[in-house]
Amino acid sequence: MSTAAKIVIVGAGRIAWHLGKRLKSKGLSVAQVISRTAEHAELLAQTLQCNWTNDWSELLSDADWILLAVRDDAIADVAGQLAPFSQDALVTHTSGGTPGAVLKPFFGRFGVFYPLQSFSFERSPVWSKIPFCVDAQEENDVLFLKKIAKTIGNLVYRVNDEQRSALHVAAVFANNFSNHCFSIAEKLLDEKNLTFELLHPLMEETLAKALQDSPARMQTGPAIRGDADTIRRHLALLQDHPDWKGLYKNLSESINPGLSI
Amino acid sequence: MSTAAKIVIVGAGRIAWHLGKRLKSKGLSVAQVISRTAEHAELLAQTLQCNWTNDWSELLSDADWILLAVRDDAIADVAGQLAPFSQDALVTHTSGGTPGAVLKPFFGRFGVFYPLQSFSFERSPVWSKIPFCVDAQEENDVLFLKKIAKTIGNLVYRVNDEQRSALHVAAVFANNFSNHCFSIAEKLLDEKNLTFELLHPLMEETLAKALQDSPARMQTGPAIRGDADTIRRHLALLQDHPDWKGLYKNLSESINPGLSI
Repeated sequence: MSTAAKIVIVGAGRIAWHLGKRLKSKGLSVAQVISRTAEHAELLAQTLQCNWTNDWSELLSDADWILLAVRDDAIADVAGQLAPFSQDALVTHTSGGTPGAVLKPFFGRFGVFYPLQSFSFERSPVWSKIPFCVDAQEENDVLFLKKIAKTIGNLVYRVNDEQRSALHVAAVFANNFSNHCFSIAEKLLDEKNLTFELLHPLMEETLAKALQDSPARMQTGPAIRGDADTIRRHLALLQDHPDWKGLYKNLSESINPGLSI
Repeated sequence: MSTAAKIVIVGAGRIAWHLGKRLKSKGLSVAQVISRTAEHAELLAQTLQCNWTNDWSELLSDADWILLAVRDDAIADVAGQLAPFSQDALVTHTSGGTPGAVLKPFFGRFGVFYPLQSFSFERSPVWSKIPFCVDAQEENDVLFLKKIAKTIGNLVYRVNDEQRSALHVAAVFANNFSNHCFSIAEKLLDEKNLTFELLHPLMEETLAKALQDSPARMQTGPAIRGDADTIRRHLALLQDHPDWKGLYKNLSESINPGLSI
């Protein structure tokens, strides 16, 4: 299968938009957008100057690659709806947290095309820095997905289901949970009329260190140095926020299991 | 008090080194280093080309500003040892987590000179981006500390004890705890022979978003979107790490208190 393959994008959310526009800008043939919401399908199809539908039965019969860019919990359902109308196309989802095998009951050729980044409408992806984690049953399909990823990006990895599951959990820690820590910090400052900008340099330094060396080796703070007095004082300060207080205690004990607080 | 003030640095750790070198490089008069460990005091004093001692009684009697750059849990002890030999100097500690008032029993003029950054020997501080949080009992001393901070840095804030306590707890979340999340992510990948570099772009994007807008508004992931299936799958994957599993659950529930998992 060449990069002249006819591509169908299913979904019209953030990933569908960003991938669709990028594929088109690199001269790849995005032929159709399918979304259950007609207006969403039409809007994206206008941008990509291609066919659109909200009716599964109108799936292009000569599609080569069907890219399911839908919510994780909709993948199996959408695959089931689409399956009766798909011919021999390669079908991949874009999910880090869903096994490729979820597509097996529905399609002969299936795989995963997972761009490991947090996409938002407000920000332009830096494609050269996004790791594309691809996998498929057949080697030819793996080669095809790698070729596509190299065309629209730079970093390409073959990652199997087991590895991708671990990667997805790890991404939740590295992104969602670290962001929640930033968010708690912001609210704590807000309560004392302090600007969150006070912490920006510290956050930048935290990241710079974690990228430069192993974050485990870079750990600082009261927990790692066993400073129980400071920890107790902090827990007392958090008494009006039992939720954050619990997190503070658990995170501290996870950093230093020898702590007695 | 002018910036020609005679400065004594107590301590010879990371903060003492970085502040000492910076003060000297800006032409300020670092006159003495005191540390309980003679070799440490001598080494820093050599670098700063000044007097040193490990004997409290040798504190320079004409010191104008005594900068206590010692561990949080040593501040009160060191202050007590030093007090009998100090004349009318302004004494400040550098701690985010310790009230300025801890110095009150020992000194007539006291305050705080807290550079809000995580210092390490391996990395050069970017002084222009470090917020200096200063406070003192007397307005003249506040002005002096602000002047010093403006001389060696750029961002200066007057922050009272209550605010600084909140700031310190917030810094623990924004730095120590987010770094621990990075660290867990690294270990999860390591177990599956995946390089941590796979997550670097996601981490950079997480920070960029949190600096651009409120991190609370930027929250993504299974918890905030209430994707209980993914969360349950992740918890099952973490079954060999009860500690991380507990953190995953608590952090998810903190992000989205309406979750039923």
